[in-house]
Amino acid sequence: MENSLVPEFQFIRKYIKKLAGKGALDLTDDAALISVNPAYELVLTADAMVENVHFFTNDPVDLIARKLLRCNLSDLAGMGAEPVGYLLTVSLPKHCFNAEWFEQFTNGLEKDQKLFNISLLGGDTTYNPYNMVFSLTALGKVKKNKALRRNNAKPGDGIWVTGTIGDAALGLLSLQNKISDFDGFLTRRYHLPQPRLGLQLTDIANAGMDISDGLIQDLGHLARESQIGAVIFADQVPLSLQAKKIGISYLENCLTGGDDYELLLTIPSEKEHLAKIESQKANIPLTKIGYCTDQANSLICYDKNKNCMTFKQTGWSHI
Amino acid sequence: MENSLVPEFQFIRKYIKKLAGKGALDLTDDAALISVNPAYELVLTADAMVENVHFFTNDPVDLIARKLLRCNLSDLAGMGAEPVGYLLTVSLPKHCFNAEWFEQFTNGLEKDQKLFNISLLGGDTTYNPYNMVFSLTALGKVKKNKALRRNNAKPGDGIWVTGTIGDAALGLLSLQNKISDFDGFLTRRYHLPQPRLGLQLTDIANAGMDISDGLIQDLGHLARESQIGAVIFADQVPLSLQAKKIGISYLENCLTGGDDYELLLTIPSEKEHLAKIESQKANIPLTKIGYCTDQANSLICYDKNKNCMTFKQTGWSHI
Repeated sequence: MENSLVPEFQFIRKYIKKLAGKGALDLTDDAALISVNPAYELVLTADAMVENVHFFTNDPVDLIARKLLRCNLSDLAGMGAEPVGYLLTVSLPKHCFNAEWFEQFTNGLEKDQKLFNISLLGGDTTYNPYNMVFSLTALGKVKKNKALRRNNAKPGDGIWVTGTIGDAALGLLSLQNKISDFDGFLTRRYHLPQPRLGLQLTDIANAGMDISDGLIQDLGHLARESQIGAVIFADQVPLSLQAKKIGISYLENCLTGGDDYELLLTIPSEKEHLAKIESQKANIPLTKIGYCTDQANSLICYDKNKNCMTFKQTGWSHI
Repeated sequence: MENSLVPEFQFIRKYIKKLAGKGALDLTDDAALISVNPAYELVLTADAMVENVHFFTNDPVDLIARKLLRCNLSDLAGMGAEPVGYLLTVSLPKHCFNAEWFEQFTNGLEKDQKLFNISLLGGDTTYNPYNMVFSLTALGKVKKNKALRRNNAKPGDGIWVTGTIGDAALGLLSLQNKISDFDGFLTRRYHLPQPRLGLQLTDIANAGMDISDGLIQDLGHLARESQIGAVIFADQVPLSLQAKKIGISYLENCLTGGDDYELLLTIPSEKEHLAKIESQKANIPLTKIGYCTDQANSLICYDKNKNCMTFKQTGWSHI
């Protein structure tokens, strides 16, 4: 962790240090040290979040921090990995350099560190005159040669998703005052995604990834990388009670909206029973929504009347 | 690597992909995978660089990229580690989203990747309406329990530095038109630091770190973490010919200015001959500038007349 804060900002250290894990060497050295069990591979992913692009200025800062961490943990989950720790750089305008801001920010991270059994390994705090910019690198581990990849789906595999789809997209619409979020559930799903860690699917699924850009677009990514086609059934896509209440006219938003951070998996039929057992064990719902075909580049989504759906927007774009 | 660029920005992939190493899985998956030899520990460090804070708007973008990479590699060198790879997030205003910008940016990184035998493992490219913000996480490896730490300097150890001290601080003054950089050497040292990788000192030095905040301030960090004191002699601190030309009135700038990215080491006297052999082997100059004492919290710098020097500013502050 950068030690070069001017004296008036030395108070920040206290807040950052409470997040430091064993390998972080108390954030006193140039870098952190970790050992990796030779039976495992290390999994690495990094994402940035920018004020006025990925979050609003007035979003609660503890939720911004936790969302960034969780998005990265979701990438680890997408590969079937277990989280180990993270590095974080924060670039902040002057108005953030006060105890209250840092307390809220680090309290959020501390909560999730406990929840996901990880700790901060290192990073940097710098000034940015214009806006808040965060960047997080997450480390995970997965047994050697067992990582779930996007490129290994096979024709005939069932297509499965965890949890419910579309809540985050509806949550964003609610924050934009376009729909009404009756009990705060949808907004919560947008602000605080749930990385689907804990499912042991590396010996069960053929392919996997997390859904960050929207179900349709991410299924497209997976199909392209695996050189397969896909058929899914919109009425089999699991929706939350709250999403169902919003109504069928928002179905397209659910299917194409981003930020769900559920998992998308392809599972061969002979292993479906194992997937169901694993789903019960981890208490994470798994729903089959379609199947893979040998028609590369063909992605078909049927509505409940078995008509092909077309979409105005196939996914969420971060730029 | 984030796949969620809107179609008009898909051209970026081509530039980023050429940087991808084996573990990056062609940047098609959620995360990268690497194996770690069980005889080694993994070393991790992250730094951010912000437009108008750490670099000027018109600095050459290839040099910005290379400086960020090299600062992080210098942190690895400070722990005696060997670089493995890096993850990079870039948050950019609209005017950067063109082929020319990305070509220059990635060409710079490509040069250094070859030079330091590393590759890109992952990252994210996002929009930032206001300014360029970069964050880089570097990975290295070091033999188990051999990492150089800041907290292991012993009274009696000699204090050593690599290369020459103060060039980067003078380079910055030259960019600010305060002094004249006759042959561009000082500016170059500011823009393109040389991480001192390749010295095998983990069995020779007791403590080590890189000098990023200025010699005096970083020596203070090392002394504090090791609970020792330090005595150094200003006239033994190695200066470049170009720095000598600028003159003695800038000596304080050299001793306290940041951005040198040389190494600061403490070496017990019985191993000095080994350090000298290693210095010749790696072709990296090593100079003794003082010694450690048992007077914790006492940092003394003598001038050539053996008077104690005092400093207006003890170091470089990034905030």
